[in-house]
Amino acid sequence: MPSLAAAPTAVSAPRYRNFVLYGYWRSSSSWRVRVALNAKGIDYESRAVNLLQGAQKGDEHAARNAMEQVPVLEFEDALGTPFRLTQSVAIMDFLEAAFPSGTGTLLPSNPVHLGMTKEYTEMINSGIQPLQNLSTFRKIDADAGTEGVGRKFAADAIRNGLAALERLVLSRGGVGEGFLVGPVPTLADACLVPQLFNARRFEVDLEATCPELLKVEARCKAHPWFISAEPDRQPDAVSA
Amino acid sequence: MPSLAAAPTAVSAPRYRNFVLYGYWRSSSSWRVRVALNAKGIDYESRAVNLLQGAQKGDEHAARNAMEQVPVLEFEDALGTPFRLTQSVAIMDFLEAAFPSGTGTLLPSNPVHLGMTKEYTEMINSGIQPLQNLSTFRKIDADAGTEGVGRKFAADAIRNGLAALERLVLSRGGVGEGFLVGPVPTLADACLVPQLFNARRFEVDLEATCPELLKVEARCKAHPWFISAEPDRQPDAVSA
Repeated sequence: MPSLAAAPTAVSAPRYRNFVLYGYWRSSSSWRVRVALNAKGIDYESRAVNLLQGAQKGDEHAARNAMEQVPVLEFEDALGTPFRLTQSVAIMDFLEAAFPSGTGTLLPSNPVHLGMTKEYTEMINSGIQPLQNLSTFRKIDADAGTEGVGRKFAADAIRNGLAALERLVLSRGGVGEGFLVGPVPTLADACLVPQLFNARRFEVDLEATCPELLKVEARCKAHPWFISAEPDRQPDAVSA
Repeated sequence: MPSLAAAPTAVSAPRYRNFVLYGYWRSSSSWRVRVALNAKGIDYESRAVNLLQGAQKGDEHAARNAMEQVPVLEFEDALGTPFRLTQSVAIMDFLEAAFPSGTGTLLPSNPVHLGMTKEYTEMINSGIQPLQNLSTFRKIDADAGTEGVGRKFAADAIRNGLAALERLVLSRGGVGEGFLVGPVPTLADACLVPQLFNARRFEVDLEATCPELLKVEARCKAHPWFISAEPDRQPDAVSA
């Protein structure tokens, strides 16, 4: 029978390891996952997939992600078996489940607070982001046969979605001195910050649309989980 | 000091109660939540919001859901405080957290299996559904100034998304005799079944696109969580 003294080593051995994140510096979904990896204190290798050059459609990346998108997280389990996961929210939920006692947590344990966190997350993740990404608005332009239709559609989706999120947050009393759900950032904040960045690229008037959300963004910008996740700090960043 | 004999009553008192689901019989997101409520064995009152008549845009419903969508789940906590939650995946995650020991569970506890469940869920919830719902394809038609552009866009999104999901599931060895992730239905299956229903409305050739996913659908159709959640069995169902 092993001595009890051996137990701590076994317990502290990582159950999952050798993380590789395939992403793109300016991809909002990649950005979310970088925040989550930081929150969990996980070291990872970053590999760039150049979306503007269409690298996501190449055979190599399509084999990693059937949707031809970023991010993709690769890792190994304790036995060295490789695994690959796509979809930013799924990756963040996996990280939370795999490392519940990481340096931080992005999901509140109270069920109602968890529900609110996921509600805000999905208002962005399924309510806004898919309607404004590059492949969506390019396809709308192609289907409509008119340049610019897709970009207008995207900008409207961002403005309407952020306005709805602003109304909901205010209906619950606003954010006070905190983040979207309480005094520490959650998965919802990890989705908000990249979405606001995209909103500016589509020239949405954020001061008019969502002043309460901008308070949250300012607090996130100063938070360590967010600072090193900024697009400009990624190895594949290109100066504008 | 209370006697230990009193403990079981306190433990079995519901922490959340008086559930009301605002939905629409044919809404795929409402359908998902009905499956989840069934999986948890939760009694609820069903209230219809007629999307075809635009009831979701009325003041009454807009106050319930800032995105002017269904579903909305209303409930009270143990002290009788009312609460309201939107976004189907957020509602399902809330139910799982609030009733971990319900009659069934829609989320596997193994982190990798959880990640796969959420990956399939989000491939549908954010990768397909937002690109094919009524408000999206109507707005694309309006922006493009041409009837039918939105419908083609929606059908393409469903076909491409389901084809990607089929490839991913097959790359992991297929579903065997089970559901999308193992021998019991998960949140991913609750999203798949309504999406396949919508695919038929858009005349997507499912036999050609995703034969493996159709096996899962057939098993779900015979499962008790799914049977009473069918659109045709809802009080507001209209015969086609």
